[in-house]
Amino acid sequence: MKASRDEFFLGKCLSLAKKGCGLVSPNPMVGAVIVKGSHIVGYGWHRVFGFPHAEVEALNMAGERAKGATLYVNLEPCCHYGKTPPCVDAIIKSGIKKVIFSTIDPNPFVNGKSVSILENKGINVGYGILEKESRDLNEAYFTYINKKRPFISLKWAMSIDGKIANEKGESKWITSDEARQYNRKLRFEYDAILTGVNTIIKDNPYLDYQSPSYLAKKEIINRKKYYKVVLDSSLRIPRLSNVFLNTSAKLLLFVKKGISVNENSDNIEIVELDEVEQGMLDVRQAVNYLYNLGVGKLFIEGGTKVLTSFYRLNLFDTIYAFIGSRILGGSAVYPPIEGKPVPLDSQKSLDIKEVVKFSTDLLLLLKNVHRNN
Amino acid sequence: MKASRDEFFLGKCLSLAKKGCGLVSPNPMVGAVIVKGSHIVGYGWHRVFGFPHAEVEALNMAGERAKGATLYVNLEPCCHYGKTPPCVDAIIKSGIKKVIFSTIDPNPFVNGKSVSILENKGINVGYGILEKESRDLNEAYFTYINKKRPFISLKWAMSIDGKIANEKGESKWITSDEARQYNRKLRFEYDAILTGVNTIIKDNPYLDYQSPSYLAKKEIINRKKYYKVVLDSSLRIPRLSNVFLNTSAKLLLFVKKGISVNENSDNIEIVELDEVEQGMLDVRQAVNYLYNLGVGKLFIEGGTKVLTSFYRLNLFDTIYAFIGSRILGGSAVYPPIEGKPVPLDSQKSLDIKEVVKFSTDLLLLLKNVHRNN
Repeated sequence: MKASRDEFFLGKCLSLAKKGCGLVSPNPMVGAVIVKGSHIVGYGWHRVFGFPHAEVEALNMAGERAKGATLYVNLEPCCHYGKTPPCVDAIIKSGIKKVIFSTIDPNPFVNGKSVSILENKGINVGYGILEKESRDLNEAYFTYINKKRPFISLKWAMSIDGKIANEKGESKWITSDEARQYNRKLRFEYDAILTGVNTIIKDNPYLDYQSPSYLAKKEIINRKKYYKVVLDSSLRIPRLSNVFLNTSAKLLLFVKKGISVNENSDNIEIVELDEVEQGMLDVRQAVNYLYNLGVGKLFIEGGTKVLTSFYRLNLFDTIYAFIGSRILGGSAVYPPIEGKPVPLDSQKSLDIKEVVKFSTDLLLLLKNVHRNN
Repeated sequence: MKASRDEFFLGKCLSLAKKGCGLVSPNPMVGAVIVKGSHIVGYGWHRVFGFPHAEVEALNMAGERAKGATLYVNLEPCCHYGKTPPCVDAIIKSGIKKVIFSTIDPNPFVNGKSVSILENKGINVGYGILEKESRDLNEAYFTYINKKRPFISLKWAMSIDGKIANEKGESKWITSDEARQYNRKLRFEYDAILTGVNTIIKDNPYLDYQSPSYLAKKEIINRKKYYKVVLDSSLRIPRLSNVFLNTSAKLLLFVKKGISVNENSDNIEIVELDEVEQGMLDVRQAVNYLYNLGVGKLFIEGGTKVLTSFYRLNLFDTIYAFIGSRILGGSAVYPPIEGKPVPLDSQKSLDIKEVVKFSTDLLLLLKNVHRNN
C-alpha cells in the first residue's frame, strides 16, 4: 500500500473531523473512514461532546463490511472508558484487519497503549502519516492535555494605529459589520468567552456566537458548550446587561473573595477568586477553574486591562487582531496591551499565521511561538 | 477589430510602460506597440526622463513597416514640444493608419487635442480601452497634473500595536531586514524622500534606494532623479550624517527663514520656508517647492511629527504601513500619528489596497480615498 493512498484517506478523516469544530471540545476533533478494497464502506466523525467517537460511527455504518477492512482515523483510537466505551474494543469486535492513524493520543490514558492492544489481537497498526496536519487541527486538544489549561486566544479590534478605543473609551465601531460577524463565527469554535466588567458596562455586548450554516440539527447545537465569563471583582455587572439574555449559555461571574452574593439563577454561577491587586482578579485561577469545567478553548475579548493581564503572563496561544481601516490618532488612548514596553531587541515576536482580508478590514491571526505556560 | 485584440496589445503597452517606473517621473509611464496584420513590428517605452517617448521608440524600431500599421499606446500621444518634439508629428510622418490609446492625457497642452490633429490627417483614432488600468498605473502623473503637487506616500514601520518607536525613541528594528530591503526598493519608485531632522539624528539613515535588478544600464540609472529632503528648521543636521554620503542624490535642507547659512556644496541646497509653529516648517511650502523642481512622487519617511503634519493636512495619497510581528506595549509612546483623535463615526477611513506578507512582517498599502488637496 502506497503512502499516497493512506494520505488520501487520512485527509478525508481530517475533513470529517473538522465538522466537529466547536462542538466536541475538550475532546479532540476526530474523523474515521473504513476502506475495503477500494471502497469506503463506512465513515463518521465525533459530532458533539458525549456522542459516539468517530471510529464507532464509522463501524456502525460499515456493519459486516468492516470485516477484513482498514480503518483510517486521524488520532489513535481510545482504550479507556470516558463518556463512551473504548474504541479499541469496538474495532477488535468488528473484524477490522488494519488500523492506520495519524498521531498518538497524548492523553496519558491512551498515549500509545492502543497500538499494543490492537497488535496483540493480530491487527496491523500503522501511524505517523499527516501527523503535523493532525496535530495542528487538534492543537487546542494537545494544549489542554499537555499544559492542563484551555487553549487561549486573545481577540481585539483596533485601528491601523493600534487603538482599541478612543479617549472616551468608545469602540463602536472600529471595524465593519462584516468583520464583527466573522468574529461571532469565531466564537462558535470556543467553549467559553471571557471579558471584563468594564466592557460589559461600556459596550453591553451579547457575547453570542453564530452557528455555521451547515449545522441545522438542533439536537447537535443544543449540546454545544458555551460559557460567558465576566471578570467582575466587585460584582458591578448591571442587572439588565445583554449578556444575561441568551439563556442557553451559562454565565460565570468571577468575583473577589468575600463579596456577598445573593444569586439563585440556574444559569448564573458566581465564583470567588483571589485578587492579585486592587480590582484585578487572579486570571490564572480563572483559567484553572475553566479547565476543570472542561473548557478546552477560551476566547478572551477584553478591553486593555483584561488583554494585558493575559498577555503579560504569556498566557495565550494565539491572537486575533482585527484591523479597521481608519487611523484614530495619538491621543486615542486605549492600546490593546498596556504597561511596561517590551525591549526592541527581545526575541519575543509573534508568528503571523494568517491574514484575512474583508471589504474594509483585516484580520491578523498571530501565533505565540514563545508560550511557556 | 475585436475589443479583446485591442485589450491584448494595450495590455502589452502597460507592461512595457512599467519598465519606466521610478525613472520617468514627473512624466507618465508609457509603452507603445505597433501592429501590422498580426505582427508586432515595433515596440518601445519611455525609458527615463529626457529620453524619447514610447511612440518614437516604437516607430524607430518599426521603420518603413509602420506604414499602414496600428499604433497602440496607453496614453494619448503628445502634441506639444517638451523635452522632445511632439509624438503626433512622428506618427503622421510614419504612415501609421490607426492609433488606439487607453486614456486622454490630462496635461492641458494635450488633453484630447492630439485626437483631432491625428483625425484631421486621416488617421483613425480610438481610445478608452483599459482606461482604468492606465489611469491607475499613472495615478502619480494624474495627481501631479490635476492637483499641481507630487503624489505623496507616507511610510512607517510599526509594531502590531501601532508603535513606531519605544519610549526611548528607538525603532531599530521593528521590522525584519527583508521588509526594510523591500522599503529600499519602494524608494526607487519615488523622486524624493523626505524626513525630519530628528530621524536623521536618531537613526542616521542613508535614505538610499535599491535599483531593480533588471536595470543594468548605468546610462539609465545615472539619470534617475532622486532628492533626499530633510525638514530641519534650525539647521541641526550633524555634519557627519550618513545622508550626505551618496553624492548622486541631491540633498535638500528645508530650514526656517533667516537661518544663517554658509553652504557651498554643489550637492546640497538649503531652502528657507515659513514656520507654522515653533520648530514646525510649513510642509505645504515644502511640497510646492518640490513640485516646482519636477518631483512627481514624494515618499515621506518621518517620525511621528513629520508624518502627523502631512496626515493632519490630508496631504497624502497612500500610506505604506509595515507591521513587524511584535507587540511593544502601551508605554512605548510613539504612534505614527499624534494629536487630537479622529471621531469614530467619521467616514474618514482608508482603503486597504494591498497586503504584502513577508516571512515575519506585513505591509499594508492604504489608499486615502478622501484626499482633497
